[in-house]
Amino acid sequence: MLDIARINAMDASEFSRAFGPIYENSPWVAQRAFERRPFGSRLDLQLALYGALQSASDDEKIALLDAHPDLAGREAELGTMTSESVAEQASAGLQSLQPDELARLRQINRAYRERFGFPAIIAARLNSKAAILDTLQARLTNSREQELQNAIAQVGEIARLRLGDLLGR
Amino acid sequence: MLDIARINAMDASEFSRAFGPIYENSPWVAQRAFERRPFGSRLDLQLALYGALQSASDDEKIALLDAHPDLAGREAELGTMTSESVAEQASAGLQSLQPDELARLRQINRAYRERFGFPAIIAARLNSKAAILDTLQARLTNSREQELQNAIAQVGEIARLRLGDLLGR
Repeated sequence: MLDIARINAMDASEFSRAFGPIYENSPWVAQRAFERRPFGSRLDLQLALYGALQSASDDEKIALLDAHPDLAGREAELGTMTSESVAEQASAGLQSLQPDELARLRQINRAYRERFGFPAIIAARLNSKAAILDTLQARLTNSREQELQNAIAQVGEIARLRLGDLLGR
Repeated sequence: MLDIARINAMDASEFSRAFGPIYENSPWVAQRAFERRPFGSRLDLQLALYGALQSASDDEKIALLDAHPDLAGREAELGTMTSESVAEQASAGLQSLQPDELARLRQINRAYRERFGFPAIIAARLNSKAAILDTLQARLTNSREQELQNAIAQVGEIARLRLGDLLGR
């Protein structure tokens, strides 16, 4: 398990390899957090990673959202998702949906992307399969500005859980 | 508008008056953030406030959730909600629900509290009235451990927005 002394001794490329995957396909977020070394505690590291997300521009936030795969989407089918996303989507049973559930999720993914211009994102480990489907459907009634904030909040939760996997809880 | 120099010059009681209300009826959270002075930037202040939430114990987190009013609940009726909650709930139209919507929300509040032991919390400013009702109903299918994390994430979003009100966006 990584402790803080070990983390503070990492060079930029080690840090990026270790913590880049906290944010899906977006190592630049962790690379910015690296600038906040040294970290006094695991909370400081968590706050640096979260702060790099919070202080990103809107365009950067949308690029980060765009770097996420659809839930049970094409990347899952092709086997090109990150190992983190595979495990998270499996935890909610999204790898073994019934045909009607899969059709509904794909319809929601399409409608969400069409309405907001970025993929539907929710922390799969924090929700049941039913909650994922119904929450994303519900979020379709929000404004784009509201959803940008909701999506970034979910990315923050995904990152928090992934960091917990690396550091122990 | 408060700038960082002004904030760093605050004593503990001024800081608590200014930032205590970021977290509903729970000034102890901001009081812990005060220990992280001086703040280099508004992001540092935001991270200190968020970090005080993240590093609270589970019992403290539940006490914080318990300090929240129900959505369109008894406190709203009695006029005893904080001004922040009044404005937030109004932004989603919760002060003028139709009788059937109010009955549904009250039923969800009851079911949620019964299942999880703390009130149903969602960042009202980040959701339409329909999304609030359907998302909370969906979250009833989650586990208590999942909902504790979802509720704290929503508290974090509420705090982020309240801080933005104080500092300007």
